[in-house]
Amino acid sequence: MKENIKVGVIGLGKRGMGTVEQVMVPQKGVVVAAVCDVYPDRAQAGADLVEKLTGKRPFATTDAHELIALPELDAVVITAAWEAHIPLAIEAMEHGKYAAMEVAGAYTLDQCHELVKTYEKTGVPCMFLENCCYGRTELMIQNMVRKGAFGCIVYCEGGYCHDLREEITTGEECRHYRLRNYQHRNLDNYPSHELGPIAQLLDINHGNRMVSLNSVASGSYGLHEYVMKTRGENDKLANVDWAQGDVVDTIIKCSRGETIHIQLDTSLPRAYSRRFTVRGTKGMYMEDNNSIYMDDTPEANDHFNWKPHWDNAQEYFEKYEHPIWKQYLAEGVQGGHDGMDWLVYGAFFRAVQNETEVPIDVYDAAAWMAVSVLSEQSILLGGAPVAIPDFTNGKFTMR
Amino acid sequence: MKENIKVGVIGLGKRGMGTVEQVMVPQKGVVVAAVCDVYPDRAQAGADLVEKLTGKRPFATTDAHELIALPELDAVVITAAWEAHIPLAIEAMEHGKYAAMEVAGAYTLDQCHELVKTYEKTGVPCMFLENCCYGRTELMIQNMVRKGAFGCIVYCEGGYCHDLREEITTGEECRHYRLRNYQHRNLDNYPSHELGPIAQLLDINHGNRMVSLNSVASGSYGLHEYVMKTRGENDKLANVDWAQGDVVDTIIKCSRGETIHIQLDTSLPRAYSRRFTVRGTKGMYMEDNNSIYMDDTPEANDHFNWKPHWDNAQEYFEKYEHPIWKQYLAEGVQGGHDGMDWLVYGAFFRAVQNETEVPIDVYDAAAWMAVSVLSEQSILLGGAPVAIPDFTNGKFTMR
Repeated sequence: MKENIKVGVIGLGKRGMGTVEQVMVPQKGVVVAAVCDVYPDRAQAGADLVEKLTGKRPFATTDAHELIALPELDAVVITAAWEAHIPLAIEAMEHGKYAAMEVAGAYTLDQCHELVKTYEKTGVPCMFLENCCYGRTELMIQNMVRKGAFGCIVYCEGGYCHDLREEITTGEECRHYRLRNYQHRNLDNYPSHELGPIAQLLDINHGNRMVSLNSVASGSYGLHEYVMKTRGENDKLANVDWAQGDVVDTIIKCSRGETIHIQLDTSLPRAYSRRFTVRGTKGMYMEDNNSIYMDDTPEANDHFNWKPHWDNAQEYFEKYEHPIWKQYLAEGVQGGHDGMDWLVYGAFFRAVQNETEVPIDVYDAAAWMAVSVLSEQSILLGGAPVAIPDFTNGKFTMR
Repeated sequence: MKENIKVGVIGLGKRGMGTVEQVMVPQKGVVVAAVCDVYPDRAQAGADLVEKLTGKRPFATTDAHELIALPELDAVVITAAWEAHIPLAIEAMEHGKYAAMEVAGAYTLDQCHELVKTYEKTGVPCMFLENCCYGRTELMIQNMVRKGAFGCIVYCEGGYCHDLREEITTGEECRHYRLRNYQHRNLDNYPSHELGPIAQLLDINHGNRMVSLNSVASGSYGLHEYVMKTRGENDKLANVDWAQGDVVDTIIKCSRGETIHIQLDTSLPRAYSRRFTVRGTKGMYMEDNNSIYMDDTPEANDHFNWKPHWDNAQEYFEKYEHPIWKQYLAEGVQGGHDGMDWLVYGAFFRAVQNETEVPIDVYDAAAWMAVSVLSEQSILLGGAPVAIPDFTNGKFTMR
């Protein structure tokens, strides 16, 4: 086991800076030894931040290839723009360095296949940093599923339902990668919230797989109205013809017969939700009122008055808290996004230190990220079914 | 205006008996003059019920054609099995009698076209008794939409989410029409909860229309497990290979660019919901936590903590209560399903008495009912897009 590991971070926008400060530098045995951003001011700011936090200035560059080639690094964390995630992860693996990619969708299926092939060729693990897989509720529900509490699982829902109108349209000098994507593409661009946790509880790539999807997008109204309302007709985005539909519904079929409904919903006013819903033959969980409904409870007979039981999910933590969270709560929750970031980054760093496999691997990354490009294709084809490749090439039946 | 009207009722199962007692006999000026059911015991029971309630025994028959031909009837109400709704409504119109059909889906597109053509040929109105169009919340939300409170509407959701496992599998001698449908068909068999209210607020058939849909069904697990658990392997339904998937998702595209997500969800344990959700550029309503979220309220800035505002929708009744419900509350709410049945049947009987058009007409009925057979087609085609006919033949642009 390597007690201390040296990590390079590529991409120091809001996410990169936040995770460096909250969940990279504070992890035991992790040294942020190099930082990189294509914008010199950001590379500088990243180095300043690490120096402020640790007293030691990391190597800083605007050239990701230079960072990846640094021989002293054990791992590369990619918190850059979406388009860069897979290419940089591939390059890191080729240099023998553990790679970790922040959340994004893929742009082509070919990228997803390359990611898998590079891992299979090099044997170097690459982790997809889907923090929602470490959500306390997500893990409790997964634990309940594993223990059979919901019976046979038939249907799941999830989504990335987050009002991003300000973020998309007002980033510093429009550097934000979301802007160009919303201008030019129409798809579920961020599927792994909440597909990741759902795929895990449905054993995707482990005896089950996603076989096809259909995707339909609403018209695009939210961003234009937002720009006009907040900044007016002289704003540089006032005349943009946004490609991205406001709400994208995607229905995925799995080989065992389950369906998964995922939604992208980021350009209309709303309260945040990951829309997490799990339906089984014995019960259900629904995030939007945080309720668990069990077929064998006396209250379940009153199908028409479940309101008194809204927000009852916490009653289940005592019995079904996931072991990861039991330990985490005992040690003290830290970092962003309700503590999920600490866990997902921690899991990666532990794998690097122990030189073991990562818990969310290239097969998961490829399958989840591919949903983006496949939803784009399906939308263009009027919601037609498109096949989801088996990135394990048959190995899902034996994993 | 006809002060007193004579009505014949076809179909005296649970729904027919309930509505005769609660919302037909008690309506002012309505005489239930004839009853019919293919089962003699039910026809008898219907006549007994009317006699008990009114002191006067209606004509009773097992032959629907005989009832429809009775010259003294002004209107025919069809509360029979799903398969009979459209054929009987057509026959009633051909006999010059106002027809009203309880909620169901269609079996072919041809039936839907015939329904419309019969109305256009005879000039006799036919109403679709979608009671949810008269729900208090549905009408308040429609009123808010009409007043622009939610801005431009982009996306709606609804569903018939109701645990019917007992009803489907344990009807008296398996007479229930649901049983044979769940055994042999896989589709959204009950789309108008909640498509009806959504179609109304989106101006479907009045300047807007539904153009296509995609439908995907989950596997079927709920009914088999329910039969085995409640009655065991010797039950006559123990070996049924149920055709109907437990959860069916259907995404409908509208000509103005809105999408509508509807769901059938009737064979897994759950609390009742019509899943009603309306999304606009200025705000949203969601039934599952009964909340209204407005972009211009200070609380809206706290996107991550909407929980304190769950169940806040009632705060909007004071300002946005629909005129129909204002009057209804003043007069006193009565009848089943939270008072919706009284309103929908009342609207039909007022039209018969005043010899006017009905508020939910054959164009609405055809479009909403067609979603059933189209979802069946789409599911069989792997979720492929199928076109939804314009049953107005272009008149939706001028209505």
